[in-house]
Amino acid sequence: MEEVKLLGAWDSPFSSRVIWALKLKGIRYEYIEEDLDKKSELLLQYNPVHKKVPVLVHGGKTICESMIIVQYIDDMWPNKYPLLPKDPFERALARFWISFSENKGSLIWKVFTTSGEEQEKAKNECLEMLRIIEDKALTGDKNFFGGEGIGIVDIAFGWIAHWFGVIEEVVGLRLLEAHVFPRLHAWIENFKQVPSIKQNLPSHDQLFVYFKSLREKYLLK
Amino acid sequence: MEEVKLLGAWDSPFSSRVIWALKLKGIRYEYIEEDLDKKSELLLQYNPVHKKVPVLVHGGKTICESMIIVQYIDDMWPNKYPLLPKDPFERALARFWISFSENKGSLIWKVFTTSGEEQEKAKNECLEMLRIIEDKALTGDKNFFGGEGIGIVDIAFGWIAHWFGVIEEVVGLRLLEAHVFPRLHAWIENFKQVPSIKQNLPSHDQLFVYFKSLREKYLLK
Repeated sequence: MEEVKLLGAWDSPFSSRVIWALKLKGIRYEYIEEDLDKKSELLLQYNPVHKKVPVLVHGGKTICESMIIVQYIDDMWPNKYPLLPKDPFERALARFWISFSENKGSLIWKVFTTSGEEQEKAKNECLEMLRIIEDKALTGDKNFFGGEGIGIVDIAFGWIAHWFGVIEEVVGLRLLEAHVFPRLHAWIENFKQVPSIKQNLPSHDQLFVYFKSLREKYLLK
Repeated sequence: MEEVKLLGAWDSPFSSRVIWALKLKGIRYEYIEEDLDKKSELLLQYNPVHKKVPVLVHGGKTICESMIIVQYIDDMWPNKYPLLPKDPFERALARFWISFSENKGSLIWKVFTTSGEEQEKAKNECLEMLRIIEDKALTGDKNFFGGEGIGIVDIAFGWIAHWFGVIEEVVGLRLLEAHVFPRLHAWIENFKQVPSIKQNLPSHDQLFVYFKSLREKYLLK
């Protein structure tokens, strides 16, 4: 098999998405930690348009953007643990929620990087987003977004399962309350019990310390 | 074959993307024009999350968001005029440029809806975007983004071929100059010569009149 390399950052939910997909499919890879404070020549060469991690290098070819990489992995190794459903309508539905996750994910980052009125606005938009996921994406008694097993939409929403709570703690807000969003809470439990996920989450305590220092930097700006 | 319906708006490049994909594949469909000033019950029922056109209804199931619809059409009718390449790496590359188009497309809308300093900033970002497309997406001597035939990336960038110029005229700015972006200009020519595109573009003059009135509304805000 051709060599697989991943350029990532330990604290990035986007890098974790790729790690989860590779682990679920049992693909061996070399991991290269990228220091985002001083981006390497390698990163600028591999991702000249966005200059961001994660980047997957497979047989010398580079693929950028986390959910595009996850789809590439699924296209490349389709038989080992399929991530995207086979049915065209189910695929479109999965893509709809992936796109929703990509477009709305920045709301919690806004809560994280702001304060006062701006934060209040982002907080409300974040609550609306959680309401839509709870009511429209997690319908029925499914354990995961796509049904009984973990799939591509679970990977896309992985940031809600782990990073969201850390940000709430750092900021001192509670948005994702169990009695308000019971389905999302059940999903977080199910998601984190999957071995490939459980064994590949950055440490909560390290994330907390790092995000706390980041938050202080943002508030000084 | 199950019934195919499209809810769209005549002036929307997003609706046009779906029309082009359906026409290229020779799929018969019923078109329903949606009045975006007073959104219909049907639209709110079909797309409760985003409340936007286009919406495709196929055999009673609804699919939202233009590029997700185009991928659905390609998944559903894969043999007639394939739009996405078969090779996993080429697919990832196509998705990269689709995502780029989706993320950067709002820049020209920003130029359209603002003035003064804000517009100047959006204008410069727009030029950067065009530079990246010219230098990184349209490499080699390809007639289209994916090679010799029209494909999904051409459909994604269709707004540059027709709407971009109308916005430039309305605003009174010229960004996409032929001597600065020769490859993009050649692509626009090639793209508009494809019969399924040529026969399915909204009238330039109608777009101009409509966008002129829209621009005036934005400037009064």
